[in-house]
Amino acid sequence: MKTYRKELWFDIPSRIGFVNITSRVEECLRESGVREGLALANAMHITASVFINDDERGLHRDLEVWLEKLAPHDPVSQYRHNDGEENADAHLKRSVMGREVVVAITGGRLDFGPWEQIFYGEFDGGRKKRVLVKIIGE
Amino acid sequence: MKTYRKELWFDIPSRIGFVNITSRVEECLRESGVREGLALANAMHITASVFINDDERGLHRDLEVWLEKLAPHDPVSQYRHNDGEENADAHLKRSVMGREVVVAITGGRLDFGPWEQIFYGEFDGGRKKRVLVKIIGE
Amino acid sequence: MKTYRKELWFDIPSRIGFVNITSRVEECLRESGVREGLALANAMHITASVFINDDERGLHRDLEVWLEKLAPHDPVSQYRHNDGEENADAHLKRSVMGREVVVAITGGRLDFGPWEQIFYGEFDGGRKKRVLVKIIGE
Repeated sequence: MKTYRKELWFDIPSRIGFVNITSRVEECLRESGVREGLALANAMHITASVFINDDERGLHRDLEVWLEKLAPHDPVSQYRHNDGEENADAHLKRSVMGREVVVAITGGRLDFGPWEQIFYGEFDGGRKKRVLVKIIGE
Repeated sequence: MKTYRKELWFDIPSRIGFVNITSRVEECLRESGVREGLALANAMHITASVFINDDERGLHRDLEVWLEKLAPHDPVSQYRHNDGEENADAHLKRSVMGREVVVAITGGRLDFGPWEQIFYGEFDGGRKKRVLVKIIGE
Repeated sequence: MKTYRKELWFDIPSRIGFVNITSRVEECLRESGVREGLALANAMHITASVFINDDERGLHRDLEVWLEKLAPHDPVSQYRHNDGEENADAHLKRSVMGREVVVAITGGRLDFGPWEQIFYGEFDGGRKKRVLVKIIGE
């Protein structure tokens, strides 16, 4: 069994942002040499997500508006976690969008449907954060 | 290490629908010959989900009503993604329900609790879509 | 390939509760002898979750309040599943928080960011339930 590990770094200036990381995960896969197996990509921080959806700007704006409605940032005083912090909403938004994706590897490629793209989702930006890519297989 | 791959096809006539795919994933597992490992089942489309919950008709109706409340289809004009499309809400509903499940394989069986069943969740039906089943192990 | 399986048992007296199970999963990892691979931890019950977030009491209270707002328990008559049951909301809350986590194993350790902790999330307490830990790797 082969295994591979890499950290991808992000520093999103805005509070919320989405970055397509598909090509970076594909690069990891090439470096791993794995042809058949599973790739895990997860946020290493609890106010961020890795998720799979469409790379369409309008949809990303819809996601941002929708998440703000489900788990509003303001007023920050509504959350007990915000005692010295102001990011409780980011923990909730990440709970909706999920921490991780697991992707099948077939024939040395990410085994995706036609529109699947992997995103890093930031919900409390302004500092450096990481995504872990772990690949196992043969 | 053994690996196995299969696509399951669906064509749900209604906009929203849930299909129990447990027996089809079990059939994949038998075909794979894997006794110990992991099975991944994921929607290959970004307006659909694979999730695990109860096979109970009332609950499925509750899920549908609840998802419509969290991410309404109408009015379609509320979403920026709906520029020529009308399925932004399906992308959001799928974000709540998730893309994939990872299931333990033990002794050649899906290692489930008493009520766990795997479902395909459709949120923008009326066309053919796929679920990917990938199994790795020994 | 090595594989390992263990069930962790819980009996949460309140309807909703969160239990940090990180050290118990770490103990499983030590017992497994796996140095490189993947660990799956999933609720075996469909009204409970396994998720990763911060071990902070204020945040857990925020999560509980927020989930109650997204998927209220009362009135129980609003749900069709509640025909003899009263836990439809628990199925919905678990859908938001997710069933499972997959964690990378590197150098014999859970490969975590600085604040990542694994939680059992109970949404319909008052009876015994299980989490499955499955580890594969070398």
